[in-house]
Amino acid sequence: MDNFTFYSPTYFDFGRDTENHVGNLVKQFGGTKVLLHYGGGTIRKNGLYERVTASLLEAGVSFVELSGVKPNPRSGLVYEGIDLCRKEKVDFVLAVGGGSTIDSAKAIAAGTCYDGDFLDFYWGKAKIEQALPIGTVLTIAAAGSEGSPNSVITDEKTLIKKGTKSDLLRPRFSILNPALTCSLPPYQTAAGATDIMIHVCERYFSNTEEVEITDRLCEAILKTMIHEAPRVIKEPDNYEARANIMWAGMLAHNNVCGVGRVQDWASHHIEHELSALYDVTHGAGLAVITPLWMRHVAEVNPDKLILFAVRVWDIPLCEDDPNETIRKGIEAFEQFLRDLGMPSSFEEIGAKKEDIPLMVDKLFRAKETEGNFVKLSRDDVTRIYESAVK
Amino acid sequence: MDNFTFYSPTYFDFGRDTENHVGNLVKQFGGTKVLLHYGGGTIRKNGLYERVTASLLEAGVSFVELSGVKPNPRSGLVYEGIDLCRKEKVDFVLAVGGGSTIDSAKAIAAGTCYDGDFLDFYWGKAKIEQALPIGTVLTIAAAGSEGSPNSVITDEKTLIKKGTKSDLLRPRFSILNPALTCSLPPYQTAAGATDIMIHVCERYFSNTEEVEITDRLCEAILKTMIHEAPRVIKEPDNYEARANIMWAGMLAHNNVCGVGRVQDWASHHIEHELSALYDVTHGAGLAVITPLWMRHVAEVNPDKLILFAVRVWDIPLCEDDPNETIRKGIEAFEQFLRDLGMPSSFEEIGAKKEDIPLMVDKLFRAKETEGNFVKLSRDDVTRIYESAVK
Repeated sequence: MDNFTFYSPTYFDFGRDTENHVGNLVKQFGGTKVLLHYGGGTIRKNGLYERVTASLLEAGVSFVELSGVKPNPRSGLVYEGIDLCRKEKVDFVLAVGGGSTIDSAKAIAAGTCYDGDFLDFYWGKAKIEQALPIGTVLTIAAAGSEGSPNSVITDEKTLIKKGTKSDLLRPRFSILNPALTCSLPPYQTAAGATDIMIHVCERYFSNTEEVEITDRLCEAILKTMIHEAPRVIKEPDNYEARANIMWAGMLAHNNVCGVGRVQDWASHHIEHELSALYDVTHGAGLAVITPLWMRHVAEVNPDKLILFAVRVWDIPLCEDDPNETIRKGIEAFEQFLRDLGMPSSFEEIGAKKEDIPLMVDKLFRAKETEGNFVKLSRDDVTRIYESAVK
Repeated sequence: MDNFTFYSPTYFDFGRDTENHVGNLVKQFGGTKVLLHYGGGTIRKNGLYERVTASLLEAGVSFVELSGVKPNPRSGLVYEGIDLCRKEKVDFVLAVGGGSTIDSAKAIAAGTCYDGDFLDFYWGKAKIEQALPIGTVLTIAAAGSEGSPNSVITDEKTLIKKGTKSDLLRPRFSILNPALTCSLPPYQTAAGATDIMIHVCERYFSNTEEVEITDRLCEAILKTMIHEAPRVIKEPDNYEARANIMWAGMLAHNNVCGVGRVQDWASHHIEHELSALYDVTHGAGLAVITPLWMRHVAEVNPDKLILFAVRVWDIPLCEDDPNETIRKGIEAFEQFLRDLGMPSSFEEIGAKKEDIPLMVDKLFRAKETEGNFVKLSRDDVTRIYESAVK
């Protein structure tokens, strides 16, 4: 196990009707004037907007609004948010939505306190030294941004999707009401579940030895998702299954199951090129890429894939032919994703074979290799993309 | 799953040599004058005292000392600590030691900011409204106090062991260097491992339904302990096994695996009467009590015991006779504890049959039943104690 630090100071308020606590929580964490940041129609339609704003007003917290966040959030809206926060002297950013809204809110929170271009943080040109405090009311279990220090934004000029990370971006509080996710369409639900599982896989597939505790935690989250995700596809209103997924989604990405080990993240980076170019739902892009990544890396680094098959998918270990065990494990995962309704090919997500060289160029613009579990070359990544063309 | 809040804001600095960061961490969290609180000889002998004080001085942090914490920490030393903190205008309490030292430090931190008797917090007569910030350098993986809001103190006048809980008692930082635990004697190591496992059991044995994620997390920690605890008994210097146990110990008690469910805690309370009366090592007392508690409650509430046997101990489910499965699961646990060198009877810990009525009286002095998984009567607890007399 490697040395590590772990810091997850977010206050989580979890359960039915917890969105009604938002005003008091903002006040408790020092907010007096809020930027209320959200996507579009949904929270207006389902009454969440009314409940959140009523709670803010009741707590004596004033607010200004910025809506219009889209999946794979863009830099343009962040600039608007920064201007608005400065003009209105906002002292707290409240995201009501999923990972895209929260990531956009984090960018605004950091950008407001910075004299330069906020994208400097995403291009690694500057370190976040200050940010407005952030709170969230989560409406999709997927990205884990409600408990993470991460934010991913697409630069509109270059269509390059880039991430940044700072403990200052960890929300002060996050409100997780599973009932708010019951109305999500099956495709979004399944893409969220996939994202959660692959947040765990990025940590699980590590060459760091002697990490039994975090291996077991990863497996616990994956097992939970295997049990719960099919249930919510069949019964979208199943509060209990939604609740288990929602807490699993936070744990999958606040790094409690990833400390003390070198993590991989190749699948995420390979997928980011897809969602930046085609605006694919991130989880759906991951459903295409990750199993193919597994097939590719299993050839050179099989051991962890065996553990994945045996412990996560209950595949009996075939001692004569461990590759058989690995194959069955990956197949079980692929079948699971298909049963959730997730795609497995470029065709299904509208990606094009002829764009592969462009995506590879973008991915490798500033690095020689991708990932850590197996260090992938341009050629490796090209082969992974190509294997998605059915 | 029940509604819950979860808040674990402690900054964990984990790994080799991390005690050398203590001065900077105290400074980072606002400390300028520290009460250095510790037990006795060990940290003086093994060089930890020198490293900690050197780090404090290097960071420009001054300190006063209070040593002499004993296992099952007593109220007397807490009063001394409170007086010292007030006299010396201490603004940060640093515990260097195990759970007893940390619990004592927490009591001092809260008591210093309170005009009344600090034991009011433990007797439920007052709520903690303010406390000095606390940091820890952990030397034993066991109590989980390094990441918990809990503190347990024995009132010296009544020999009653009582707990209190407040988010204000959560350490600002905890330094976890597994190498510091390598010199622990096997008995202390085993008692710590037992305590960790039973912190998980107290949460696992719940009647709250639909808690797959926290069930799986509990099982992950238990599985880790089953793998790692025997290793450190055989190889005390095994850093990697120590590291896995140390992180498991924090996770077992910061409540990440216990949220959203009614927890039990009967074993702990039944054991507290033992350690208050005989000064038994808490983990050793639990090793005696918990398997007997399991046998007792299995008669009325078997289902979770079946899960415990199957998922934690890999006992095949005997569908014709589930009691057989339960029995084998508990026996596996008992054998595991014996192999670690833990006691299983009153005789081995110096407890006396004739004191059972006194312990039962003390336990039930202010309640009608004990525990939640099965609500135990005085008679139930008497039978559990009696079954420990071999």
